[in-house]
Amino acid sequence: MIKVTGYAAKHSFSRLKKYEFEREDAKAHEVEIEVLYCGVCHSDIHQVKNEWHNTVYPCVPGHEIVGRVTKVGPAVRKHAVGDLVGVGCMIDSCGQCEACASGDQNYCMAPNSWLATYNGPMQPKSKVGENIYGRDNTFGGYSNMLVVKEDFVLKIPAQLKPEVAAPILCAGVTTYSPLKHWGVKAGDKVGIIGMGGLGHMAAKIAKAMGAEVTMFTRTREKIEEANKLGFDAVIEDDKQALKDLEASFDFMLSTVPEKHDINNYVQLLKRNAALVLVGALEPMAPVDNMQVAFKRRTVAGSLIGNLAETQEVLDFCAEHNIGPEIEIIRMQDINDAYNKVEKGDVRFRYVIDMASLKEEMGE
Amino acid sequence: MIKVTGYAAKHSFSRLKKYEFEREDAKAHEVEIEVLYCGVCHSDIHQVKNEWHNTVYPCVPGHEIVGRVTKVGPAVRKHAVGDLVGVGCMIDSCGQCEACASGDQNYCMAPNSWLATYNGPMQPKSKVGENIYGRDNTFGGYSNMLVVKEDFVLKIPAQLKPEVAAPILCAGVTTYSPLKHWGVKAGDKVGIIGMGGLGHMAAKIAKAMGAEVTMFTRTREKIEEANKLGFDAVIEDDKQALKDLEASFDFMLSTVPEKHDINNYVQLLKRNAALVLVGALEPMAPVDNMQVAFKRRTVAGSLIGNLAETQEVLDFCAEHNIGPEIEIIRMQDINDAYNKVEKGDVRFRYVIDMASLKEEMGE
Repeated sequence: MIKVTGYAAKHSFSRLKKYEFEREDAKAHEVEIEVLYCGVCHSDIHQVKNEWHNTVYPCVPGHEIVGRVTKVGPAVRKHAVGDLVGVGCMIDSCGQCEACASGDQNYCMAPNSWLATYNGPMQPKSKVGENIYGRDNTFGGYSNMLVVKEDFVLKIPAQLKPEVAAPILCAGVTTYSPLKHWGVKAGDKVGIIGMGGLGHMAAKIAKAMGAEVTMFTRTREKIEEANKLGFDAVIEDDKQALKDLEASFDFMLSTVPEKHDINNYVQLLKRNAALVLVGALEPMAPVDNMQVAFKRRTVAGSLIGNLAETQEVLDFCAEHNIGPEIEIIRMQDINDAYNKVEKGDVRFRYVIDMASLKEEMGE
Repeated sequence: MIKVTGYAAKHSFSRLKKYEFEREDAKAHEVEIEVLYCGVCHSDIHQVKNEWHNTVYPCVPGHEIVGRVTKVGPAVRKHAVGDLVGVGCMIDSCGQCEACASGDQNYCMAPNSWLATYNGPMQPKSKVGENIYGRDNTFGGYSNMLVVKEDFVLKIPAQLKPEVAAPILCAGVTTYSPLKHWGVKAGDKVGIIGMGGLGHMAAKIAKAMGAEVTMFTRTREKIEEANKLGFDAVIEDDKQALKDLEASFDFMLSTVPEKHDINNYVQLLKRNAALVLVGALEPMAPVDNMQVAFKRRTVAGSLIGNLAETQEVLDFCAEHNIGPEIEIIRMQDINDAYNKVEKGDVRFRYVIDMASLKEEMGE
């Protein structure tokens, strides 16, 4: 067993604090990783606060993890000690179902679906009455060490700084996957709704794909920031701007992490175009099917991305020299960081420097 | 001018009754048609009652029209006197926009969009400030004569009875178009929600395409009727049946003509599969994006079909020897028929025999 130090929430109403636990040693196909950086995702907050009504406590969040391989199991072929690697939202899937067979582990159809990097299987034993992974909880990247199956460990390209690479493992692939799946291409007009961690990554990726990008935000101060990053930007309640943009977008992506009204955005889609929601995993405001049907529009959802897409987006960001705008924080600042994320005060992704944990470990 | 007798509503709260009006004589590219049969569509009732808040009165409904050509303009090439022909929901479109250029007149992007067979342009002058068609109202097939541009007149195949062909012009194409657009093919499992005029046609067409069809209805008595027609059928609130069907459908089509909760049906879709709404043109109940995103599902809308698809579905029904289940009524019975449609008492489509109008014309 490996002694591990992390930060955990004990209840939905408690602040995160130091938590010591053990991880099993790396098995034949597993890799032991020293965590260097871990991004702070809005879903960490949803999960800690039990806003999806499925949190298992203690909860050690973190699924935007970059670290260095410190040990490998005897059967590991893909990674070596010293490699800079990443771990995203998943650490296992059934490997047998039609989704896994076609490479879409993120849509694993096994009773428990995939095994999340933290909080255990996506469908817990309490809901589906079995647990193919034998673990009801898993502990994520807000910790100094991680042990993960080699297939679920990604390679961090040398051109990417490790702290910049971290958010690509969730915010990056969650937006890259639908942009790719719905065929966004050079010359397309793409709208990105919400300008947080996911939204600003989506915009950078879409632009690198050759699309013309417009961001929609509720925060007036972000207009200038969007322009600085090279994007058009519109305030969500600017009625004239919305009218001028009617039926003009080839694709739109909503990254807003909570229930919101998408009707204004549906009207901005061209005929046959899609609006895909990746932020809000909950009941949405009612959608007017008059607007949807009259241009054969589509409203869809998408969930992170598969392993191949995760490696692709890391390589894509390296190749196009793009990455998230980040602010490094210490592990001890996490509760304050959560408050700022909820207020929309972050520009644009907090990344925890795990070296800060060492002082609490007596090193 | 041609003297025409029809049935009209004068207000949103009035019953339909005899109404005499004039139509202009057929111009160079127009065809004059003696109406033989006209189907009764649920949207006739929505329109008569001003439930879409855009009805122009007097309102002469009817857009499932079969008749015989009685006169042709000098430039008409496609039709001849004596031909059995059909007219559906549209009688004109701009012909210039990208949608029209690609053959999708039903998504015409001109300011007024397409010209509806009754009630005038889809976007009235009062809304968009111009009217390319020069007509603020049009009178539909609840009348003895019609004059229509030849391009918007379809050919009724000889194998189809005229009264059976009539509902194919709206109920048929409205369901055929999305089944075709979303690529339904032999072996697919298709769910049809609602078992009225549209729903039962959708089921017949999907089955003729080689799909395995399950109908969902709120009316217990329709289960047996669905089975008789060769379809599986499930009551909408049969929780066990819905659970057993989870994630099993390649495609679903909702034909329910009013706001309804589709969350139970979204859960029945396979990964990457679509639920398309063609019945309800209004704000829907909230959809849980958790269910949508977790299998990258799609919710979309579709509006009737284009001219080519309308001819295709007529030919397809003739070839596969299918058609709607109809009940012939007299024009004078229309108000009673509306009541029955609203109660779901019709099995499955009323078709008006226009010969019944003659007695009111003193013939």
